[in-house]
Amino acid sequence: MSQNIYDNETFFQEYKELRKNVYNYNILVEQPAIRKLLPDLSGKIVLDLGCGYGNNCIDFISKGASKVVGIDISSKMLEIAKKENIHENIKYIQMDMSKINILSQKFDLIFSSLAFHYVEDYKKLICDIRLLLKDNGTLLYSQEHPNTTAPKKGCVWTKDQFGNKLYSNLSDYMYSGKRKITWLNEKIEKYHRPMSEIINTLIKENFIIKELVEPIPDENALKKRPDFIDEFHRTTCVIIKAQLSH
Amino acid sequence: MSQNIYDNETFFQEYKELRKNVYNYNILVEQPAIRKLLPDLSGKIVLDLGCGYGNNCIDFISKGASKVVGIDISSKMLEIAKKENIHENIKYIQMDMSKINILSQKFDLIFSSLAFHYVEDYKKLICDIRLLLKDNGTLLYSQEHPNTTAPKKGCVWTKDQFGNKLYSNLSDYMYSGKRKITWLNEKIEKYHRPMSEIINTLIKENFIIKELVEPIPDENALKKRPDFIDEFHRTTCVIIKAQLSH
Repeated sequence: MSQNIYDNETFFQEYKELRKNVYNYNILVEQPAIRKLLPDLSGKIVLDLGCGYGNNCIDFISKGASKVVGIDISSKMLEIAKKENIHENIKYIQMDMSKINILSQKFDLIFSSLAFHYVEDYKKLICDIRLLLKDNGTLLYSQEHPNTTAPKKGCVWTKDQFGNKLYSNLSDYMYSGKRKITWLNEKIEKYHRPMSEIINTLIKENFIIKELVEPIPDENALKKRPDFIDEFHRTTCVIIKAQLSH
Repeated sequence: MSQNIYDNETFFQEYKELRKNVYNYNILVEQPAIRKLLPDLSGKIVLDLGCGYGNNCIDFISKGASKVVGIDISSKMLEIAKKENIHENIKYIQMDMSKINILSQKFDLIFSSLAFHYVEDYKKLICDIRLLLKDNGTLLYSQEHPNTTAPKKGCVWTKDQFGNKLYSNLSDYMYSGKRKITWLNEKIEKYHRPMSEIINTLIKENFIIKELVEPIPDENALKKRPDFIDEFHRTTCVIIKAQLSH
């Protein structure tokens, strides 16, 4: 079973505070970039892996999806989803991402935002996704960038005397595997995989890479968060769009 | 016209010395990794962009290629190629890689080893390559890894007091463009492009990504060059195999 840090009460309170800031990374950088890559959703059936609050699920409905299944390991996340983003065509299920092979439905789009870096067995996940996708179905997901997940000591910046970030300390990039880092005062387990492993696993499971995005803040985002200029030194996340070949 | 640093006499003497060391990076890491990805060459026509000494050209012949064209901007490189790696089915041409659109022949494989990071207009290069490839033809190339080319100040390591490399100073990754660095006592111009730009340019030109390799030294290489363990912190090069879809 995957780590369920979001059901840790203290952690979740901290996380909720972070998410309240409408000028956070997800809202200003990751969300606009991944939404740009969405295929036409009219009448489509979508699975959202690690759906969290359900914001993307409700967005898919507004874009015409006929059915959305959102799964998340955290009951606390889903409590909020069921309050804030409820819809008759959205079904929320508490489920570990490593258990999706029990789903019987097939999907047009499998989507995931910033969750795959928590998954230990990426190869199995991609295999499970392949089996759940219709022919020509799309996988669209973001995860932390390998340059961010690589260092065994966590992603650390070297700063100048004024606190400006000079460069990111890149190490351990080719050592695929578990990383233990501290986030919001809690120990978090993540999994680092080099870009080549991420890409080649998809290709071996019959996916065609359609686009790779290393998102950067636009002018508007930089006005709100000038510190996001550091994303130009190394991007926090990577977004991959892949299509199952028939 | 691209920079022709290899025809600088002083630089070329230094370069030849470096290449004489049979325990260098090219021989121990890059060459074995890229050769593993070669398709079946029996009866195939191959173009080698930046062929240098012609070692790969002669290797293609030994693997059954019926014809090989090797181009290089440097006359000094080709002088050596024409001495050491001559064959009736290899044609060496002194030519800037940005001029390959004048070639009239079509190829089964277009190959390039550690040269594309010298090319300013990558988009044009990939477009030219597409036009020179037969349907289902293969592009196989290595170039310096974006994590190596990114820093505007050149790729620098932070070391401990004993000189051991701790981490690579990663910066400027999302600023695509020219980099001026010093190598073998000469100023060299290279072009950095983020991984996403490298990959998406290929996809837009109708290539299907078949494999992405971030090569690391094997046990044998590490015995000869224990210092190559640092490649696990960040790899010097990346290798891409792509197929033109029909």
